[in-house]
Amino acid sequence: MLIHWKPEKESHIPIFRQIVSHFEEGIKGFEYRTYSRLPSQRELSKLFDVNRSTIALAMDELKALGLIVTNGKGGTRVAELPDGVRSFNWSDYVEGSMYYPNREIIQTINNLDFDDHIIKLSSGAAMPESFKIAKLDQLIKEAAQTTLTLDYTEPKGLLSLRAVLSEHLSSIGIKAKPEEILVVNGALQAIQLIALGLLQTGSTAFIEKPSYLYSLNILKSFRMNKKGIACDVHGIKPSALYKAISRNHHSMLYTIPNYQNPTGRVMPIDRRKKILEVCEELNIPILEDDVYRELWIDEPPPPPLKSMERGGQVLYIGSVSKHLSPGLRIGWIVGPESVMNRLSDIKMQVDYGASTLSQIVTELWFKSDYRETALNEIRSKLKNRRNAAIAALDKYMADLGTWKKPKGGFYIWIDLNKQISEAQLFQKAIDAGVLIYPGHVYGTDEGSAIRISYSSESEERIEEGIRILSNIIRNL
Amino acid sequence: MLIHWKPEKESHIPIFRQIVSHFEEGIKGFEYRTYSRLPSQRELSKLFDVNRSTIALAMDELKALGLIVTNGKGGTRVAELPDGVRSFNWSDYVEGSMYYPNREIIQTINNLDFDDHIIKLSSGAAMPESFKIAKLDQLIKEAAQTTLTLDYTEPKGLLSLRAVLSEHLSSIGIKAKPEEILVVNGALQAIQLIALGLLQTGSTAFIEKPSYLYSLNILKSFRMNKKGIACDVHGIKPSALYKAISRNHHSMLYTIPNYQNPTGRVMPIDRRKKILEVCEELNIPILEDDVYRELWIDEPPPPPLKSMERGGQVLYIGSVSKHLSPGLRIGWIVGPESVMNRLSDIKMQVDYGASTLSQIVTELWFKSDYRETALNEIRSKLKNRRNAAIAALDKYMADLGTWKKPKGGFYIWIDLNKQISEAQLFQKAIDAGVLIYPGHVYGTDEGSAIRISYSSESEERIEEGIRILSNIIRNL
Repeated sequence: MLIHWKPEKESHIPIFRQIVSHFEEGIKGFEYRTYSRLPSQRELSKLFDVNRSTIALAMDELKALGLIVTNGKGGTRVAELPDGVRSFNWSDYVEGSMYYPNREIIQTINNLDFDDHIIKLSSGAAMPESFKIAKLDQLIKEAAQTTLTLDYTEPKGLLSLRAVLSEHLSSIGIKAKPEEILVVNGALQAIQLIALGLLQTGSTAFIEKPSYLYSLNILKSFRMNKKGIACDVHGIKPSALYKAISRNHHSMLYTIPNYQNPTGRVMPIDRRKKILEVCEELNIPILEDDVYRELWIDEPPPPPLKSMERGGQVLYIGSVSKHLSPGLRIGWIVGPESVMNRLSDIKMQVDYGASTLSQIVTELWFKSDYRETALNEIRSKLKNRRNAAIAALDKYMADLGTWKKPKGGFYIWIDLNKQISEAQLFQKAIDAGVLIYPGHVYGTDEGSAIRISYSSESEERIEEGIRILSNIIRNL
Repeated sequence: MLIHWKPEKESHIPIFRQIVSHFEEGIKGFEYRTYSRLPSQRELSKLFDVNRSTIALAMDELKALGLIVTNGKGGTRVAELPDGVRSFNWSDYVEGSMYYPNREIIQTINNLDFDDHIIKLSSGAAMPESFKIAKLDQLIKEAAQTTLTLDYTEPKGLLSLRAVLSEHLSSIGIKAKPEEILVVNGALQAIQLIALGLLQTGSTAFIEKPSYLYSLNILKSFRMNKKGIACDVHGIKPSALYKAISRNHHSMLYTIPNYQNPTGRVMPIDRRKKILEVCEELNIPILEDDVYRELWIDEPPPPPLKSMERGGQVLYIGSVSKHLSPGLRIGWIVGPESVMNRLSDIKMQVDYGASTLSQIVTELWFKSDYRETALNEIRSKLKNRRNAAIAALDKYMADLGTWKKPKGGFYIWIDLNKQISEAQLFQKAIDAGVLIYPGHVYGTDEGSAIRISYSSESEERIEEGIRILSNIIRNL
């Protein structure tokens, strides 16, 4: 038996306890094989540099636990354990692997999202009513009738879907042939594919500060960096961007120009042009995440950066998750054909494509003659919710923080007047039945802030949630 | 203007042509900015270590192309180009990034797979008729009726689907609670998640030789290794496995015990037990890819390794892609809860879960009362195809190679009697309208072999494809 371990002398855990735990884990975790002989107590005492009596105590405990047996001659061996007692030690594998886990707070939110009792001022998904408004059930039935088989699709996704997406994109000023479009499992996968297929160790993603991207560990897992750029009410400051970018050939600007997550901000057309200019001059590509575009409330947003670029420098992301259904898991990336070839090849390697059924339903949605009517109904419902949220904030939180009324999307960013513990606020809100995102998740490093969303609760529950929240903040 | 480039003196491309190309790419690719001043001809001559006359010739050409302009005083600047001429240079990004592209041959096959004219003796997907036999259209309609919304699902996938999967698994001897099951977008994603969440740089996957895993670049992209283990007719040789594994803590055995891809081989129960023993003794986990299990033709396969393990050392992969529909993109991994927690957290980070719609349809399939009848019909159809393929091989190829009649699944592995160029055979077969996989894709390193599949063509076309193939081989 080879032992590559020593007790920690400085630990608050007694040495004898450490030794017992070590052998218990090693034996149950298959590391020490059945019947293998343990070193003698004298050898162990020397190996661990502890008293014989400590070893004897530990061995007695291990024997009592049935993990080791001694024979007449004083030899000690690993006992044969009944089935089910041993279990393979996976923690070693998890700890050594490359991908960072989600931050604990994100894991907590991911799980609480399925608790019906909690008021979710956290959701980033389409309003649940969208399903009915968009008559998704009919589209699914239609998909069943028009389909004869559900095979894998072409590497870039169903050609007929990409053809309607091409038409749709032209309506917002983006000229893209079906070959320049790649269907993905939602915008998040687009970011993943770009990290794997276009960036490299040491690459930097320049992002808005605060930004959704701060909440993700994708880049960190591949040893890529995020650098927040200062923003004003119109979004990224061109001067700050210019200053931050040192001709770094493998970096990229990531921006959400419409109803930004988490600030709700819209980048006006002049700022878009300016940002494009800076990126053209500094030769840095742009990833434009435009998943909230359809969710305008007061007026349609400015045209995409992608529609104003000159040299294929912008990759554009769209999705149905925010205005139709996140459960379809359908998004798209648009860019030069060679880049889409690269990313679709990687997509084929990671999961062989998106659900064909979801793609067919999405195609039918884009072809439906009531699409614009349905979107207007969705926008009007969303407007009521936004107004309810703003009214409740005015009513309950006017003395506690400041915010801007968003012109679309889901999010209101609240800068709190007093410095509080966001962690405490988050936890107390959960205890009181309200789920929110604390600001630090999005990379703020001074002041206290929270993000609330009005997408998935009724007007009454939005008001109730904000009322509860205001009480907690006031009492912190 | 900073220039970090020099012409290649040894190249067969004339120096002057190299200089023109360099500036053309640099200017069109935004690297050299509009209006920026080029060094003088004298400076360039010195910088590139070439004659003034060569530089002059190159500058004339660049002027003629409209890429540079000279002013009266002899200064030379980058011209302002009309929109659309310049295009961002993405190749730099692609080349520096971490993920390996699919091998060219796999990319070719992925694309040709959607060509209806070609006889596909290549397919790894469910028989196209499965859609109808399984009444998938009815299940999709039912899904439309029973669904009120299509939201994101729980991190591990729809609980109700995991509940029926749990029942299904118990029917093949695997005890797994819903918490021990993770729904993924097909088996390929399971492998991806395991690479990201359990393995590390330098880890080794021990695999059958030949194996499907040789055709993937997933592990290579993350700097992990593959090591083929010698097999006999019963699969991996325990002695070879024992010898190959040097107590490497972050490695794993990957095996396809039923109707192995590409050999079609089934591992008998005794061999399964032996392999489990070796892995338990050497403390190495097993990834059991069992996606072909339902496709038995002559008799049900032996129980999964997962059902015989003692300590949670086996991760088990299943899927509907091979017996029902690949277009649903639904598979599952089964393992200890803590490991599934880890992998589901990564799944949440890479794409936020599988299509909810596909999950509902899969759930209805497992709940349907005609499932066993449908599977029997699928098996009987598959049997006819296998028999047609074997009959055609006996008729046309008896003198050209050897093969075994598979007891299920899709694949026949043909060892060719003479050493030929597999690349040539592959290409000539395509030219003649037949798509196959050459053996080297699966990691063979001696002799010539091919894999044919009988899953997606009619009996007539299978025979026709094999006839054409035999002619090509005979004439090579």
